[in-house]
Amino acid sequence: MQILITGGGGMLGQKLVNELARTSNLLDVKIDEITLADVIVEPKVPSSAEFKIVLKIADLTQDGVAEELISNRPDVIFHLAAVVSGEAESNFEKGYQVNVVGTRNLFEAIRKTGNGYYPKVVFTSSVAVYGGPYPEVVDDDFNLQPKTSYGAQKAIGELLLNDYSRRGFLDGIGIRLPTICVRPGLPNKAASGLFSNIIREPLIGIEAVLPAGKEFTNFFASPKSAIGFLMHAASIKTAVLGDQRCLMMPGVAASLGEEIEALRRVAGDKVVGLIKEERDPFVEKIVADWNFPPFETARAKALGFTCESTFDEIIQVHIYDELDGRIPGLEK
Amino acid sequence: MQILITGGGGMLGQKLVNELARTSNLLDVKIDEITLADVIVEPKVPSSAEFKIVLKIADLTQDGVAEELISNRPDVIFHLAAVVSGEAESNFEKGYQVNVVGTRNLFEAIRKTGNGYYPKVVFTSSVAVYGGPYPEVVDDDFNLQPKTSYGAQKAIGELLLNDYSRRGFLDGIGIRLPTICVRPGLPNKAASGLFSNIIREPLIGIEAVLPAGKEFTNFFASPKSAIGFLMHAASIKTAVLGDQRCLMMPGVAASLGEEIEALRRVAGDKVVGLIKEERDPFVEKIVADWNFPPFETARAKALGFTCESTFDEIIQVHIYDELDGRIPGLEK
Repeated sequence: MQILITGGGGMLGQKLVNELARTSNLLDVKIDEITLADVIVEPKVPSSAEFKIVLKIADLTQDGVAEELISNRPDVIFHLAAVVSGEAESNFEKGYQVNVVGTRNLFEAIRKTGNGYYPKVVFTSSVAVYGGPYPEVVDDDFNLQPKTSYGAQKAIGELLLNDYSRRGFLDGIGIRLPTICVRPGLPNKAASGLFSNIIREPLIGIEAVLPAGKEFTNFFASPKSAIGFLMHAASIKTAVLGDQRCLMMPGVAASLGEEIEALRRVAGDKVVGLIKEERDPFVEKIVADWNFPPFETARAKALGFTCESTFDEIIQVHIYDELDGRIPGLEK
Repeated sequence: MQILITGGGGMLGQKLVNELARTSNLLDVKIDEITLADVIVEPKVPSSAEFKIVLKIADLTQDGVAEELISNRPDVIFHLAAVVSGEAESNFEKGYQVNVVGTRNLFEAIRKTGNGYYPKVVFTSSVAVYGGPYPEVVDDDFNLQPKTSYGAQKAIGELLLNDYSRRGFLDGIGIRLPTICVRPGLPNKAASGLFSNIIREPLIGIEAVLPAGKEFTNFFASPKSAIGFLMHAASIKTAVLGDQRCLMMPGVAASLGEEIEALRRVAGDKVVGLIKEERDPFVEKIVADWNFPPFETARAKALGFTCESTFDEIIQVHIYDELDGRIPGLEK
């Protein structure tokens, strides 16, 4: 089996290739080769992989690049490459180029390959396709009303994925990721970064700023769950999806205040003491647009997608996966 | 006031420029000049117009064409240019080029003009953005699940219009047109043509084929109402729309069988006798995808959009506007 991962140098791309190195199989078939493509970052290669890994610096917005990337006819394509939310808002042109034109270039390259080429395409959409006002709990039929350019671009990607799938050009499945939390490493330009910062920094003994009121809510899943969603999406027989190939993934609803109380239960008062409230009206305006409610995700759950059930668990996943099971903030 | 009409050679574009020639004003401002742009057809010019009319053969999918079209900074742009439903389904590439790339080129040209340029953009979307399964009556919050490439392309246009409006690049309003009926003239490539054919042809004494079961339903408005929607949309102060700039227009729900009974009431048995049932499984498959339910359209009605209230009235509008008030099929 041949696999292509676009955005292979990103946080999810790197975790995904590591998971694939661990399993060595996808859909019960041995993986022969994975291509990791990314636009700037040279992706890292897991040392333990039993399959061949090809690294490519590739910009899908450029003519001919998508065609070259799929020239070995990968069986499964994880299309993770994207300009994230904050950057899509600050750089309007780049967001549309990468998230819309780049995605369409990839789908077009697949369509034009023809000759029976019919790859499984796993597309990462986002909770950002939604916008308020919301009912108390949002079900799978809720209308998409994105309030950000990023959300609009992901919603366009979904429409393309559905239509290319309906026409038989590719076998697509789109997964709307909740806000990924706790994001490891340095902050990226995702607008939702503050939800991770207030957990990640205190756990390693660094002060973090809480720039918005504790009442703001969001809908979360861990990076580990996100990798689980991607692996499971690749295995879904898409006939069960009908023409609606995109679905909201399960997650944990929590407010900023509930995040902090979960951190207190997991790591204690000393760690929570590192969170300093400093309200920033500019950030609060952004967070207000990202004030996501609980999602029912009945469809995804029925298809076997799973994630953490509490925010405590989300923090524990971070401590286990990123901090070797320790809480350095307690030891200082 | 300067006005640009893309698709100015099409049925709606031609009727719109005639209506503007009649009013000479838009938004209580005198019209100075209208540009009619179309890709192939040389648009016709109403003889009575008191304003200057500029005709342009222009293909929005080509580089630089959109920039040239708006170089005189039109105050109001009616963006009607589109590949219609049947053709968007049979020519996948052309549909995306014209309906998505062409629309984005226009919006990009407006954005890049900058310098305070902020035109009103009236975009014709379509009932085709919807897809089943439907509840008994569809309200304004119903999820968009297009079942055709045309519907997907129009839904993408709506997302772009909303986002470009939210970002302040243009002042957009999108109107989802019901199936336009009775379409005058020769059949075009719209998938919904048969709903008009069975009325238009018998009224002039020509046999028409009914290729699908009488139980199939749709949601209709006359060409006259469509022009009313366009004129009214141009006058709406968009602040009342919030971030959701697109809305379903009112219409009349009817099945093929109800259309025929309305024709019988308006024109009698002799005319109805010209309809021959010849079921065509291929057409029935298309019509099944276009089996639109009644739409509530509360939002549009509250904003003052109006249309016919019965299908009888829709037929009478056709007789009055296209047949000089006569029914030639009765006279043969």
